[in-house]
Amino acid sequence: MASVGFLGLGIMGKAMAANLVKAGFDVTVWNRNSEKCAELVALGARQGSTPKDVAASCDITFAMVSDPEAALALCQGPDGVAAGIGAGRGYVDMSTVNDTTSKTIAGLISQAGGRFLEAPVSGTKKPAEDGTLIILAAGDQSLYNDVKPAFEVMGKMSPYLGDVGQGANMKLVVNMMMGGMLSIFSEGMSLGQKAGLDGRQILDIVDAGAMSNPMFKGKGAMLLNENYTTSFPLKHMQKDMRLAVALGDQLEQPLPTAAIANEAFKQAIKAGFAEEDIAAVYKVIK
Amino acid sequence: MASVGFLGLGIMGKAMAANLVKAGFDVTVWNRNSEKCAELVALGARQGSTPKDVAASCDITFAMVSDPEAALALCQGPDGVAAGIGAGRGYVDMSTVNDTTSKTIAGLISQAGGRFLEAPVSGTKKPAEDGTLIILAAGDQSLYNDVKPAFEVMGKMSPYLGDVGQGANMKLVVNMMMGGMLSIFSEGMSLGQKAGLDGRQILDIVDAGAMSNPMFKGKGAMLLNENYTTSFPLKHMQKDMRLAVALGDQLEQPLPTAAIANEAFKQAIKAGFAEEDIAAVYKVIK
Amino acid sequence: MASVGFLGLGIMGKAMAANLVKAGFDVTVWNRNSEKCAELVALGARQGSTPKDVAASCDITFAMVSDPEAALALCQGPDGVAAGIGAGRGYVDMSTVNDTTSKTIAGLISQAGGRFLEAPVSGTKKPAEDGTLIILAAGDQSLYNDVKPAFEVMGKMSPYLGDVGQGANMKLVVNMMMGGMLSIFSEGMSLGQKAGLDGRQILDIVDAGAMSNPMFKGKGAMLLNENYTTSFPLKHMQKDMRLAVALGDQLEQPLPTAAIANEAFKQAIKAGFAEEDIAAVYKVIK
Amino acid sequence: MASVGFLGLGIMGKAMAANLVKAGFDVTVWNRNSEKCAELVALGARQGSTPKDVAASCDITFAMVSDPEAALALCQGPDGVAAGIGAGRGYVDMSTVNDTTSKTIAGLISQAGGRFLEAPVSGTKKPAEDGTLIILAAGDQSLYNDVKPAFEVMGKMSPYLGDVGQGANMKLVVNMMMGGMLSIFSEGMSLGQKAGLDGRQILDIVDAGAMSNPMFKGKGAMLLNENYTTSFPLKHMQKDMRLAVALGDQLEQPLPTAAIANEAFKQAIKAGFAEEDIAAVYKVIK
Repeated sequence: MASVGFLGLGIMGKAMAANLVKAGFDVTVWNRNSEKCAELVALGARQGSTPKDVAASCDITFAMVSDPEAALALCQGPDGVAAGIGAGRGYVDMSTVNDTTSKTIAGLISQAGGRFLEAPVSGTKKPAEDGTLIILAAGDQSLYNDVKPAFEVMGKMSPYLGDVGQGANMKLVVNMMMGGMLSIFSEGMSLGQKAGLDGRQILDIVDAGAMSNPMFKGKGAMLLNENYTTSFPLKHMQKDMRLAVALGDQLEQPLPTAAIANEAFKQAIKAGFAEEDIAAVYKVIK
Repeated sequence: MASVGFLGLGIMGKAMAANLVKAGFDVTVWNRNSEKCAELVALGARQGSTPKDVAASCDITFAMVSDPEAALALCQGPDGVAAGIGAGRGYVDMSTVNDTTSKTIAGLISQAGGRFLEAPVSGTKKPAEDGTLIILAAGDQSLYNDVKPAFEVMGKMSPYLGDVGQGANMKLVVNMMMGGMLSIFSEGMSLGQKAGLDGRQILDIVDAGAMSNPMFKGKGAMLLNENYTTSFPLKHMQKDMRLAVALGDQLEQPLPTAAIANEAFKQAIKAGFAEEDIAAVYKVIK
Repeated sequence: MASVGFLGLGIMGKAMAANLVKAGFDVTVWNRNSEKCAELVALGARQGSTPKDVAASCDITFAMVSDPEAALALCQGPDGVAAGIGAGRGYVDMSTVNDTTSKTIAGLISQAGGRFLEAPVSGTKKPAEDGTLIILAAGDQSLYNDVKPAFEVMGKMSPYLGDVGQGANMKLVVNMMMGGMLSIFSEGMSLGQKAGLDGRQILDIVDAGAMSNPMFKGKGAMLLNENYTTSFPLKHMQKDMRLAVALGDQLEQPLPTAAIANEAFKQAIKAGFAEEDIAAVYKVIK
Repeated sequence: MASVGFLGLGIMGKAMAANLVKAGFDVTVWNRNSEKCAELVALGARQGSTPKDVAASCDITFAMVSDPEAALALCQGPDGVAAGIGAGRGYVDMSTVNDTTSKTIAGLISQAGGRFLEAPVSGTKKPAEDGTLIILAAGDQSLYNDVKPAFEVMGKMSPYLGDVGQGANMKLVVNMMMGGMLSIFSEGMSLGQKAGLDGRQILDIVDAGAMSNPMFKGKGAMLLNENYTTSFPLKHMQKDMRLAVALGDQLEQPLPTAAIANEAFKQAIKAGFAEEDIAAVYKVIK
């Protein structure tokens, strides 16, 4: 099996790298704070000295860091991935970054002769540990084929979506649907309760039919309990809805429902709920 | 176990009455076209001569007919339910009727001394046969308690929702959510495909996450196949959305997402898709 | 010149009847509280004893009362217009009534052999005094032709709009446009001021261009002064927008902008501004 | 009176410069194609050799060119305005440019020691000739004061709006209102005609009341005649509405009516009407 590198051992990265080691991959890890490498080394991983070193010594290198700046920093400079990757090796950035960053990294890697794949994931700590992430891969197709066995260890699905940028587009489409669903769900819950129906019963009846979905169950309980502990910050959802509507603008696709749901999330930000969970949109609707 | 009557042996009623017979209830059936009674009699049911006769001879009488006019006709006149029901007996109308009809029937029955429950169902032939309908019961609570064992034979859930009218309100709330979901889903499917994503992959990714629901699976396949064979006629959905928005108007509940989704369904009716399935709203969005 | 009757001498009716007298019409007046007749009699009008009496003695009788109930009461009963009108005489109801009331009155008059015109007006005290009302006439066209000279005394325009009901429809169309204009105007004023622009300058610039209109001038000053003294109650505007959207529903005409503006007015009612001026919609937008 | 330069003698610039000459200003003109200078020279203007030369020799230099690229090109390079302007002199760009271009030009001029004003205009050929433009000025306030006499020659109003960028913001606010008005107007015209009302009568009645405005008159005639000859291209309106909604996003100002009107214009672009007049939005609404 191919030798793989793994850069970034935060909550997500540590769990993902551990799954690769356990599955028998020859894994070399690196983390900005090198102490975090010990746990992986104990499982059987090697430790690399720099991103450049890891990229130079492994067939394929994965990265999982927390933001676009960190993702870009990994690739640039004398110790960066681009300095080490060389012809034909692969780099798979699984961090969630914006479109521009993804294209900048793609450019750096391909100028250095490497192959690149963006592969943001959907799912948090538990799916990372269980190997049940949803991996949205886009970019070099030959690299996708080579890396598929590793994706199958880390995720429950990892479709190939096309050119660099399509991973981000898929995420916008999915989150736009989510925002719209949450908006109509909140309106329904409000209307029903104003009509004298019991909120719990509405949830049960919806859950018994064709609309039954985990999100309504989870968010429904949150809004009945008036508990908006942040799982997905509302301001991020609004940003994604704004970007989705802008994408529609660019592609000449009218999106009236999404545009109006976006306004509801804007109303929630105006009301001071930007940092609360997306379910807090209910507070400006009810 | 109590003696029960069953009026109306169409596709739904026949299956529901048969389940009651099989569960050991003492069932008396009646149908406008009396030939349809034979099958039930063969299973062990008695045959009544008129709605009045059935209502007079049974503790509780159910009705399941196809429209508000038929539901009203069952109760009125010298052979109607109201003429036979007498003090303390119960009448449960499981037909889907409008608010006015339901209240008229409730008035007729209570003036005759009877107890009344509206109990429209969600679900079609298969759930009726399998006893897995969703029964939305509202009206006389003592009757609800008495009739609960029969509901448990016919449905998988049968919550008590409050006064007469709340069954209809619950249906509007649920269908409004459904219409909104379908509208944002159609927008997402259109946007994604215009951005070059594969429709099948969008469905798979949505299905792997927190939004996963049977409706998106079913309708998603329909719109990818451009097959809008009617399961739920679009014009009925638009009518329910209109009524839901009107209910919001009355209750001072703003419903912007629902109002805009309603406009999409109106657009679809204007485009000639009134009789097609609700999924045909996609054709005016894409 | 024909003899005309005038029923209802409130603020509007008194001014309108006075203009008819001054223009040389032979006017017979009646008012529920007969003291109000004195002023008109002093100008040269006769005084009638009952609506029946007026309708029986004049070629054409006008009515201008404050609500649908009063309008209906004028026509019914032994002393009502219908009892007196007889074949060929005309009745012109200039009160603002709903569609149902207008059709009921039309029926009463035509059953009695009379001709009927609904003619609600746009404009308040000052235009009534100045004879510059906008009269929206619909119903019997021969009566319209006969009554035109009187309309020209009372109003600056009085188009014939078609069958009974078209006067009300025209009013809905016009008010729907007004509600939508007010909603986008409020959004623009809010956006501009949040961007640091001066509200007064926005008004001046709009007023200098193709959008210049009296309403923006009047309402613009109100919202800059945070003065929402009622000229047109917000709840009436919302009712008209609701009816306009319902008319669109019936005619298969999608109206997304109106539907969303309607939600803004609903939001304002929910916030407690039902009795304030329509300009108060700004308070829930800003 | 101060010496002024004028760069760009297209349809607009020629008329504006001519008005300055006629008003007695000492004007030096320049145009990329120098032949166009002859007419102004005949009126009494001097001719400059380069933008640098004009900026260096005049107290204040105006520019009026057709797009952002041309506006930027005027300022840059060895012959550009920035190379000549020097300390204390003024530059007033009256072209319609985007926000970024305006700020770039502002930066170039202030680095060169000059004072800068953005002053996009509202109005076309006729108002330019008549000196009745609406001038939206923003930037250096001392320069605004110095240039005010010239603005009064060219325009009927020229308010000072604040820092560079506020001219553009004002234009977005005004155009957003225009787009929203056109959308609700189109819906009203469609609804009325579907209800059997006469389109001409709707226009007349609206024109007789508080909503009366030149735009409804002009566009109303266009849509009744189904004549969409371009005066303001629909795609530009949609771009402005998109930018206005984006500005609302940035300022946490919900704009539901504008967002939905924007979707109507997007629908019109999708239907192929991008190059037609803004009135063509009616074609996708009716």
